[in-house]
Amino acid sequence: MMVSNETLELLKQSSSATLTSVLRKKGFKNTFMHRVAPLNPGSKMAGPAFTLRYIPAREDLDIEPLDNLTDMQRVGIEQIQAGDVFVIDAREDTRAGTMGSILAARIRVRGAVGVVTDGAYRDSPTIAESGLPAYAAAMNAHTNKTIHHPSEIQIPVACGGVAVFPGDIVVGDGEGVVVMPPQLASEVAEEALEMELRESFILTKVQDGAMLSGTYPADEGTLAEYEQWKQDRASD
Amino acid sequence: MMVSNETLELLKQSSSATLTSVLRKKGFKNTFMHRVAPLNPGSKMAGPAFTLRYIPAREDLDIEPLDNLTDMQRVGIEQIQAGDVFVIDAREDTRAGTMGSILAARIRVRGAVGVVTDGAYRDSPTIAESGLPAYAAAMNAHTNKTIHHPSEIQIPVACGGVAVFPGDIVVGDGEGVVVMPPQLASEVAEEALEMELRESFILTKVQDGAMLSGTYPADEGTLAEYEQWKQDRASD
Amino acid sequence: MMVSNETLELLKQSSSATLTSVLRKKGFKNTFMHRVAPLNPGSKMAGPAFTLRYIPAREDLDIEPLDNLTDMQRVGIEQIQAGDVFVIDAREDTRAGTMGSILAARIRVRGAVGVVTDGAYRDSPTIAESGLPAYAAAMNAHTNKTIHHPSEIQIPVACGGVAVFPGDIVVGDGEGVVVMPPQLASEVAEEALEMELRESFILTKVQDGAMLSGTYPADEGTLAEYEQWKQDRASD
Amino acid sequence: MMVSNETLELLKQSSSATLTSVLRKKGFKNTFMHRVAPLNPGSKMAGPAFTLRYIPAREDLDIEPLDNLTDMQRVGIEQIQAGDVFVIDAREDTRAGTMGSILAARIRVRGAVGVVTDGAYRDSPTIAESGLPAYAAAMNAHTNKTIHHPSEIQIPVACGGVAVFPGDIVVGDGEGVVVMPPQLASEVAEEALEMELRESFILTKVQDGAMLSGTYPADEGTLAEYEQWKQDRASD
Amino acid sequence: MMVSNETLELLKQSSSATLTSVLRKKGFKNTFMHRVAPLNPGSKMAGPAFTLRYIPAREDLDIEPLDNLTDMQRVGIEQIQAGDVFVIDAREDTRAGTMGSILAARIRVRGAVGVVTDGAYRDSPTIAESGLPAYAAAMNAHTNKTIHHPSEIQIPVACGGVAVFPGDIVVGDGEGVVVMPPQLASEVAEEALEMELRESFILTKVQDGAMLSGTYPADEGTLAEYEQWKQDRASD
Amino acid sequence: MMVSNETLELLKQSSSATLTSVLRKKGFKNTFMHRVAPLNPGSKMAGPAFTLRYIPAREDLDIEPLDNLTDMQRVGIEQIQAGDVFVIDAREDTRAGTMGSILAARIRVRGAVGVVTDGAYRDSPTIAESGLPAYAAAMNAHTNKTIHHPSEIQIPVACGGVAVFPGDIVVGDGEGVVVMPPQLASEVAEEALEMELRESFILTKVQDGAMLSGTYPADEGTLAEYEQWKQDRASD
Repeated sequence: MMVSNETLELLKQSSSATLTSVLRKKGFKNTFMHRVAPLNPGSKMAGPAFTLRYIPAREDLDIEPLDNLTDMQRVGIEQIQAGDVFVIDAREDTRAGTMGSILAARIRVRGAVGVVTDGAYRDSPTIAESGLPAYAAAMNAHTNKTIHHPSEIQIPVACGGVAVFPGDIVVGDGEGVVVMPPQLASEVAEEALEMELRESFILTKVQDGAMLSGTYPADEGTLAEYEQWKQDRASD
Repeated sequence: MMVSNETLELLKQSSSATLTSVLRKKGFKNTFMHRVAPLNPGSKMAGPAFTLRYIPAREDLDIEPLDNLTDMQRVGIEQIQAGDVFVIDAREDTRAGTMGSILAARIRVRGAVGVVTDGAYRDSPTIAESGLPAYAAAMNAHTNKTIHHPSEIQIPVACGGVAVFPGDIVVGDGEGVVVMPPQLASEVAEEALEMELRESFILTKVQDGAMLSGTYPADEGTLAEYEQWKQDRASD
Repeated sequence: MMVSNETLELLKQSSSATLTSVLRKKGFKNTFMHRVAPLNPGSKMAGPAFTLRYIPAREDLDIEPLDNLTDMQRVGIEQIQAGDVFVIDAREDTRAGTMGSILAARIRVRGAVGVVTDGAYRDSPTIAESGLPAYAAAMNAHTNKTIHHPSEIQIPVACGGVAVFPGDIVVGDGEGVVVMPPQLASEVAEEALEMELRESFILTKVQDGAMLSGTYPADEGTLAEYEQWKQDRASD
Repeated sequence: MMVSNETLELLKQSSSATLTSVLRKKGFKNTFMHRVAPLNPGSKMAGPAFTLRYIPAREDLDIEPLDNLTDMQRVGIEQIQAGDVFVIDAREDTRAGTMGSILAARIRVRGAVGVVTDGAYRDSPTIAESGLPAYAAAMNAHTNKTIHHPSEIQIPVACGGVAVFPGDIVVGDGEGVVVMPPQLASEVAEEALEMELRESFILTKVQDGAMLSGTYPADEGTLAEYEQWKQDRASD
Repeated sequence: MMVSNETLELLKQSSSATLTSVLRKKGFKNTFMHRVAPLNPGSKMAGPAFTLRYIPAREDLDIEPLDNLTDMQRVGIEQIQAGDVFVIDAREDTRAGTMGSILAARIRVRGAVGVVTDGAYRDSPTIAESGLPAYAAAMNAHTNKTIHHPSEIQIPVACGGVAVFPGDIVVGDGEGVVVMPPQLASEVAEEALEMELRESFILTKVQDGAMLSGTYPADEGTLAEYEQWKQDRASD
Repeated sequence: MMVSNETLELLKQSSSATLTSVLRKKGFKNTFMHRVAPLNPGSKMAGPAFTLRYIPAREDLDIEPLDNLTDMQRVGIEQIQAGDVFVIDAREDTRAGTMGSILAARIRVRGAVGVVTDGAYRDSPTIAESGLPAYAAAMNAHTNKTIHHPSEIQIPVACGGVAVFPGDIVVGDGEGVVVMPPQLASEVAEEALEMELRESFILTKVQDGAMLSGTYPADEGTLAEYEQWKQDRASD
């Protein structure tokens, strides 16, 4: 299912905290990746997941030189589409990298908007500098093949304890990564934006000294005030 | 690739310690599952792996009543062949069971010779009593769907930190579970049996007071003694 | 809220696996303690929780000789009522015991029907032999005061990752410990018993060769068969 | 027991390393929170603890909309006094946030000087930017209610493996958080300041090439030198 | 320092719980190994530590065939004296065994009274059956060389989070392993025996219905009763 | 074995990712420290290891005032040579610091080029500011003696799961720390530099749009291009 660029742009305007709240109201309670953090605090991305799954390495599986036509990591990278987020299931094992700076560069050239792993990156300082939004559980210079064998692409994976299906919408900010089914993306984006707006209004009120009671959650009076504020704002 | 029953019987006559040693000599160093233990100390099994892979549960995926025709755990169980070992990749997450006693009974009726998970079982006391060799990282009464969604059958999986491909030969004893590619099974079985015999000879010598030096590893003299002992034994 | 002895007896006739399933249907999905196992595989208990909460030890808090009139662990033990289960929140820290054999004996004399901790016991072999159902995450000979300070009794606690309120019904079997609000105990007991019966019928069918489809979950035909079987059984 | 602002100001002039050393000399060896780090490296705070304790969430406990008059997190926040440090016991469970930016803002408006949790914050980038000293074990966008139920305020808690009583003095710097009983605060502050001064003298000597022997710990000669330096400094 | 056989025999008559309590009174608070358990619940042993230390394996260090004259594990085993307890520092890494059944047999023939590791054994079922008291954190069939390189013998080691010096007295029972400096062994043995006796008296009183207050800890009255009981017992 | 300054300078010009790759080709697969990160992202260092090994603290071992002539941490620091990297085995235990800012200053004055621990530092903000490259698993203000006893210097140690022998070459960058035997340092330095050059060529090509196939790994055509580029570059 295609999610429009407009929706993806809207999703990037909400924080991962707001998005998880909206998803929770829709019954999805396990949507934020555990122990996966941005390499750069200012990261921001949104796009459909392109998944890669690692299993534990076995000595006979990954013989050098690596063959770009059969190695599933490489095959996957050459299939990534513009706008995708590359999501790597590394079984939360950080004893080796899952990717280095050259592959990250190729991913970027192909138009991907971010990379996510619940393992580690190698060359992580270079990846961080490159500007590609990148999320991981650790840094590790060891090449993937010591610990990880690339097994499949574009199947459902686990990443940071969250289920990620190919095409799921993956949104990252300075806090981490949230995942949602694509059919929910549009309504989540809109509800989140509304919630962001309402919460920014509430935040201002709180900063101005309002008590929590009546303000957060907003009671009828506060909601009316908010609607008025929104209207005033719109008519500016 | 088919492995003969004779080979499987031979494999059961060797300990998992001997099998990992033989595999190590062939270059396979990560073949024993980590943190996976038998429910019964006297367990013994060998057979080809039939794999099931769980990913993290998501609220919309597993709606009750469960449909045996689409739920991959159930679909898999009804495809298991006589002699198989059912291997479940639970991402080492023990916060819920991966299977209970009724499914274990069905697996047994279908002729499977063992079950393995790097998660937990529910009804584990009943499974333990049933006599079906069963290996797990823990016991947990919660049903799988709280934490796990059955995603695929018969694809490569990670179990206890070891890669397991469908058809890989899985051998279990009172220590745990070892995995090997099927094309190695026959030679591993024979070399392991020879190693078991040699080590039982060495063990007797050590119990009789032999020093390690010259005995373990065996030097030429000890090896000659061993060959003589083997010959005497054969001619009895 | 008082739960009748009859209900407690019924609860003991169901497995923790069945109880968690019934609770799950009522919306309670986190009811089984994680990483807490019985000292004796044959353990069985049910009763209201009497809670003790430990916080980290501080050198000025627990001066010897310990005063039975102010030490909250001791105060609590002398308030336990017949039928209670003593539940200790040890923050899953197993670096010291939470109780030894003399206190376990006192708890038993007071009529408690079990003890549970997400920490460790000291004198655990003696406690195991005593016959008092006891559940823990480990064995550790160190006395509690090295690591733990008894802070409160009879307040809500965390044990094995589960919320336990004073008076919650705590049921243990050979798999572990399940917790439920007392107002649910009676209906859970009855539904669980019915489920146990139905599943024992299903188990027999599966052992006799029935496929999962139509049997588990039971379709209308199987349910009718089951009702007939129940009726026949009742009229025996 | 009240601790003066002057003492709190003095405490902020010492590092957490110096404070733990002084406390250790007084017999307190477990005073620094484990795995709790500042969101901002330049953080600095000191004040009495206002405590909140979470237990594991249960589905019936936290019904939306949340009621500010009964939800203990909210009740607590509205009771925080100017100068307090808000300390949250989250059982070191980082699978959800313990608080977000709006509540952090309210806490700040109420005059609190810092927030500490051994769990995670949501909206952590916003909290970090707000300038409120904030310490946590992780970032997690999930709302607290997924995992945590606010159970009590102002009771003794565990935070980062350290006992924290309401009113305990909590001091944070770029390394982390140290906790001490209020009755010790004044003398700890003074001894720490003296130790800071002495160690800055020693550090200068070491940077100028002094060997450790005679210098650190300071022997009589070095101490005399130090006293002279202090006197000279005072008379400047 | 030599510890007499009589002292060792006395130590075996006390539980590890009693021994840690006596050691704690002498200021030693970290004497019981964490996460190290007996292979057989009925285990009992006491003797001076003979230590082996593993570091992480490196591919060039352990070339096959292994040389008994230079491999420090083997060198150590051939130096063990009758009565020793073999203590292996495996950095709590259980990804491989630290020893198998043939070496355990050699250790036993040499007169050692037990083996302890904070790693794993391979051939653990065989070691368990052999009757040699054996303690470990896990079972793992992989040979040590995959993960561990034997680096030194008879130097101070860490085992289960406890410092163990060569010659330290190591006592094991069904709960686990306690370590003490040899110069304390004799007085610890005697005080522990007295404590065991007193606690068995107290346990009987508690089983007969005595309240904790006045009994445990024993007040003057109880102590007098105990002295009388001891005297009566002695004169039987 | 002495490694020339020129070699050390070359090693600093390669990333830890490149160095682990070159070492892997030589058969060394476990050379990068796990969970050890730089205090400053821009860190860079190379030098021979000077090792210190901690064991768990015991109450009688470290009496104050500490004696610089017998405390092995202090003895070691005064033996460090210019150019050394101080490597501390803390058993990955971060419950206390392994060193503070004054000792770090002394180490720096002695000419050491970096410090590494798999435990924590205290005064870590001051150490970070000092400019001395420093790597650790955490920050912790507690002094080492609470948890750690300095046992030996200049023996083989484990650090971050890697074997480190005295004199091994330790190289650190913004990703972490890699260790190699000194006899390999020179050839590793040269091969790594060549690999860095080749990969920077490949990276440019990839950034310019080259597909992975034929480029990474480089096929004959790409290698020829690269050789030409190198030649052109040299003749500039």
